Amino acid sequence: MKISHVEHIGIAVKSLEEAIPFYQNVLGLSCYAIEEVTEQKVKTAFFQVGQTKIELLESTDPEGPIGKFIEKKGEGIHHIAFALDGGLQLALDELGTKDIQLIDKAPRKGAEGLNIAFLHPKSTHGVLTELCNK
Amino acid sequence: MKISHVEHIGIAVKSLEEAIPFYQNVLGLSCYAIEEVTEQKVKTAFFQVGQTKIELLESTDPEGPIGKFIEKKGEGIHHIAFALDGGLQLALDELGTKDIQLIDKAPRKGAEGLNIAFLHPKSTHGVLTELCNK
Repeated sequence: MKISHVEHIGIAVKSLEEAIPFYQNVLGLSCYAIEEVTEQKVKTAFFQVGQTKIELLESTDPEGPIGKFIEKKGEGIHHIAFALDGGLQLALDELGTKDIQLIDKAPRKGAEGLNIAFLHPKSTHGVLTELCNK
Repeated sequence: MKISHVEHIGIAVKSLEEAIPFYQNVLGLSCYAIEEVTEQKVKTAFFQVGQTKIELLESTDPEGPIGKFIEKKGEGIHHIAFALDGGLQLALDELGTKDIQLIDKAPRKGAEGLNIAFLHPKSTHGVLTELCNK
């Protein structure tokens, strides 16, 4: 598999309204989109930083993945997403042969219309790792 | 302050020897340097991914910051470092006027000879945030 760059870093926050000012007014980044991903039960806010996006994630449901994460660990970095040069299904098949535990065995749609798939932190030394392509 | 890109993502691991193969053989990234930062009680391994580095951090002392992090939270993403366009001391002074709690009030030397300073997660919605420049 060939990874070209870090596509985004997902950060779990309790409230977009409270967290956006830190990235915008303190770090000087610009929020260019807010999007709800109903399937994931989150509302997201995006900031571009060079090649990489910061994706703030606010849960819309305490039983959703971000709601549960915050309840267990508090606010903080949730996942890293790597952009693939090449097919995502091909990469997932390759990971299968290397005994990597997959959360998604086939690509699904994520925010911004990307094709995404998550690898399980058990196989990645604790890092929830996402692969994606356009 | 002006941030140009994500300089690196710091990931706490129990053992470089065990974690490097995931990044190298599974994700296909290449480890270009291993460096010990005695002041921080860590051994680090670096992988370049586009503009950004993945910095694996293995503790050399259970009482060091990474040793304590792993004891409390397990392996996982430890911090995000943003590269500054412009002076680091100037940026820290600006943050002081915005009531951001700083771990480092003045720049210090980090891995790869960078000038670095950390902001406290209490002021950043749970994300240990590093600013750095060359």
